[in-house]
Amino acid sequence: MDLKLASRKNKKKTIVDVDGIKIGEELVVIGGPCAVESEEQTMKAARAVKAGGGKILRGGAFKPRTSPYSFQGLGLKGLRILEKAKQETGLPIISEVMDSRDVTWVAEYVDILQIGARNMQNFSLLKEIGKTKKPTMLKRGMYSTLKEWLNCAEYILSEGNPNVILCERGIRTFESYTRNTLDLSMIPSVKEVTHLPIIIDPSHGTGKLSLIEPMAKAAVAAGADGLMVEVHPDPKNAKSDQQQQMTPDQFKKFMKNVNALDNFING
Amino acid sequence: MDLKLASRKNKKKTIVDVDGIKIGEELVVIGGPCAVESEEQTMKAARAVKAGGGKILRGGAFKPRTSPYSFQGLGLKGLRILEKAKQETGLPIISEVMDSRDVTWVAEYVDILQIGARNMQNFSLLKEIGKTKKPTMLKRGMYSTLKEWLNCAEYILSEGNPNVILCERGIRTFESYTRNTLDLSMIPSVKEVTHLPIIIDPSHGTGKLSLIEPMAKAAVAAGADGLMVEVHPDPKNAKSDQQQQMTPDQFKKFMKNVNALDNFING
Amino acid sequence: MDLKLASRKNKKKTIVDVDGIKIGEELVVIGGPCAVESEEQTMKAARAVKAGGGKILRGGAFKPRTSPYSFQGLGLKGLRILEKAKQETGLPIISEVMDSRDVTWVAEYVDILQIGARNMQNFSLLKEIGKTKKPTMLKRGMYSTLKEWLNCAEYILSEGNPNVILCERGIRTFESYTRNTLDLSMIPSVKEVTHLPIIIDPSHGTGKLSLIEPMAKAAVAAGADGLMVEVHPDPKNAKSDQQQQMTPDQFKKFMKNVNALDNFING
Amino acid sequence: MDLKLASRKNKKKTIVDVDGIKIGEELVVIGGPCAVESEEQTMKAARAVKAGGGKILRGGAFKPRTSPYSFQGLGLKGLRILEKAKQETGLPIISEVMDSRDVTWVAEYVDILQIGARNMQNFSLLKEIGKTKKPTMLKRGMYSTLKEWLNCAEYILSEGNPNVILCERGIRTFESYTRNTLDLSMIPSVKEVTHLPIIIDPSHGTGKLSLIEPMAKAAVAAGADGLMVEVHPDPKNAKSDQQQQMTPDQFKKFMKNVNALDNFING
Repeated sequence: MDLKLASRKNKKKTIVDVDGIKIGEELVVIGGPCAVESEEQTMKAARAVKAGGGKILRGGAFKPRTSPYSFQGLGLKGLRILEKAKQETGLPIISEVMDSRDVTWVAEYVDILQIGARNMQNFSLLKEIGKTKKPTMLKRGMYSTLKEWLNCAEYILSEGNPNVILCERGIRTFESYTRNTLDLSMIPSVKEVTHLPIIIDPSHGTGKLSLIEPMAKAAVAAGADGLMVEVHPDPKNAKSDQQQQMTPDQFKKFMKNVNALDNFING
Repeated sequence: MDLKLASRKNKKKTIVDVDGIKIGEELVVIGGPCAVESEEQTMKAARAVKAGGGKILRGGAFKPRTSPYSFQGLGLKGLRILEKAKQETGLPIISEVMDSRDVTWVAEYVDILQIGARNMQNFSLLKEIGKTKKPTMLKRGMYSTLKEWLNCAEYILSEGNPNVILCERGIRTFESYTRNTLDLSMIPSVKEVTHLPIIIDPSHGTGKLSLIEPMAKAAVAAGADGLMVEVHPDPKNAKSDQQQQMTPDQFKKFMKNVNALDNFING
Repeated sequence: MDLKLASRKNKKKTIVDVDGIKIGEELVVIGGPCAVESEEQTMKAARAVKAGGGKILRGGAFKPRTSPYSFQGLGLKGLRILEKAKQETGLPIISEVMDSRDVTWVAEYVDILQIGARNMQNFSLLKEIGKTKKPTMLKRGMYSTLKEWLNCAEYILSEGNPNVILCERGIRTFESYTRNTLDLSMIPSVKEVTHLPIIIDPSHGTGKLSLIEPMAKAAVAAGADGLMVEVHPDPKNAKSDQQQQMTPDQFKKFMKNVNALDNFING
Repeated sequence: MDLKLASRKNKKKTIVDVDGIKIGEELVVIGGPCAVESEEQTMKAARAVKAGGGKILRGGAFKPRTSPYSFQGLGLKGLRILEKAKQETGLPIISEVMDSRDVTWVAEYVDILQIGARNMQNFSLLKEIGKTKKPTMLKRGMYSTLKEWLNCAEYILSEGNPNVILCERGIRTFESYTRNTLDLSMIPSVKEVTHLPIIIDPSHGTGKLSLIEPMAKAAVAAGADGLMVEVHPDPKNAKSDQQQQMTPDQFKKFMKNVNALDNFING
């Protein structure tokens, strides 16, 4: 696969430390709304994530949307709301950055930078993030092979940033019952090729509320290092991804079941 | 999805009884060689499956191969070997039938008829099998949507055969690290749309020995009704699928780990 | 690609002679309804094909349908109608055979046997057809690589039937604007690997009336040996594929434009 | 498809004027090396393009590469070489821009900005380019539906830049004989949905020298507004895409054949 720094031959295991949370060592659940829509919505979601036992808060301030006329996110205002949610709950924050020009200042607001699936091969963005030391979650492109994905990680590592977390979020296939085809075989595949931790996003990976918990459990059983799921105080009125966001109550139950399995497997 | 007999609205749960083994009720592991190559090879594999705790023996007598010059299976001779293996071990037998003309007599030899992925939409074969009451495992075509797959089950059911078992074995995508992309999201998807049991084949689904156990565990965690894996006394010298067949020792260890998880989940 | 009889190293060019029509030498247009629905419908379609300059009449007597509850074709009755249409118009006939048991008798009614995309890897059917000398059109499976497709031709050739015609009819991708993705690159690809003629089906390949003529012209410009298109006297009331069948008038105009291009290119 | 400015309901036809060359009105062939490697190589290629009758010179100064260790392009130095080639030959220049920060200054060097397939949904880049009036070629992502592609055009148009040219360069499928699957059905599809011109890139679309001319002719027959092909003075020693670049002599012959077809079709 022609990897250098990302290769497992080079290093056994990467553990990314985010405010004391060790991604790669313990099962880490990241929860939160698809998009930061308002202070109230985000605060409610953050409290639900905290209450359920989630470790990190997600929320999109910059939203990559198919149409220019769809809600594009609150930008800086959204990041300030996330900052407030962190102050109250103590949860570290992950949010997407879409533009190489925004890397430096967005990195001041968030604890983990997210590179979205559509930007996986935005090499300028990868290089810019590589120049920071910021923990970074690299989502697999919906059309990307394992080889291409890990080469994108290599772009970040080779610029000097070792804190890369991989995230499988479903690939594009002909199947239309699910939004994407969540490729869980990437969990053991990633583990035999690289030392980087891998997190699974069953919310985007399936696009269906009813499929999130079974696929999350499957991910844990296959050895995933974490899960990222969408939690919203009022999914029906969400500005994006209404079909795949859990209510606070659903998240609570979800966490109970996932934790039980994690305890059995990882002890 | 326009299903009638296969729809969950029509029936809650189908349990297929094979010699007292209840597929749909307990986790059933099917093991055995990709192809029946000789009596010795099949006997050794059968004993390994039995010893490991497998419930059903698989083995191809008719092999669908890309090239006409590849090993095509032993045919009737292969079925007779399987019969012998059943006599010794007591394991019921599953084997593929590829031709509508062979359904009646092959059904005399085997306990479960298998419809391979390439024949999923061989409607003549589906109808012919529908006229028997024989338990039948319908593999998902490598290019098939859930809707098309369940409509093929509907072909069998509508002819009068209610004993249909679904089998997910991976779909074709652009990813080349794995042989196919095993689509575990079909487990909960199948369960919300139909009453038929679903079995996962991580051997064909991944094509890599190292990925079989993690994906099998993931399947169990997601609620699969069974697993089908390849076991061969000497994988390196197998006439097909050398990369994905377990040795007897590997199968033993595999079963131990899968059973532990099954006990935790299904109690 | 490991071909023997199908390889271009083995033979320069195959010309399949159907009642004096030389497929592989002149541009051959095959037209007719998706399915034979009635004598009246088929006769009208046949006359339209004849009037427009089509050389061969198509019409499905056995229809492979996703659902068992969709119209499955008229079977023998349909073949008899096609026979009548041939008697009146003089057009040779192509129709699909789906079951290995039907090969011998269907071959008595038709001039070209068609193997549908869903049956491309129905190896029993391929072998049975290989035992005849009947001209046979082998459609590419919607999930099939060039290598797999040509190996299926090899199955037929290796049984003794040299009269194989390939037909590209679109592959399955994520694109949904078109019904399938018509892969015209197969025309020059087929020509550099094998000696068999290749026909393009833009009706199934696009699923949209408006796209058929541009893609047919593209196929001719790329060197296709023929075209297969759907013609129906009353497309709106067709029992299948309403969106992609031409009226007699549309077919006439289509033929005029295609012939002009063919004259320019192939002189 | 929910388009506004890109919709054909809104405008009949866009003609993008590049130094008097009218894209959308006449068949425009763009030629040149995959990457600008040196002044000598680029000058030779430019002269070959000019001599063959190409209208616009292509050449990558910034190269998006799978691995960070592959040749990344000469950057500014490459743009200066292109500028020189333009001075000598009079050919306008197209080159890719990968970073939103580079849009303004790269636009000073080139006549057409290219957005590569991997950056199709780099929305920051789209918006930045939308703020200029620069002619822009938007390549279809290798995983992109028509709907997503045209929405990316909408991003550029909605910022105020009407000069968008679409470019189909092949999508990713399971087929491996070709590098990508060139989807020519996009030509008539684009023309019925939008008013923007469409150019076909058979070099990337097939990845094989032998397939470029047949697919280019097919594109012209289907109504493409232009072609983009790779020309290199010494393809064997090219730093990228060795398999798909034409020599000056091959380009000359290619142009002769393409022009003859264009004259027949478009008069």
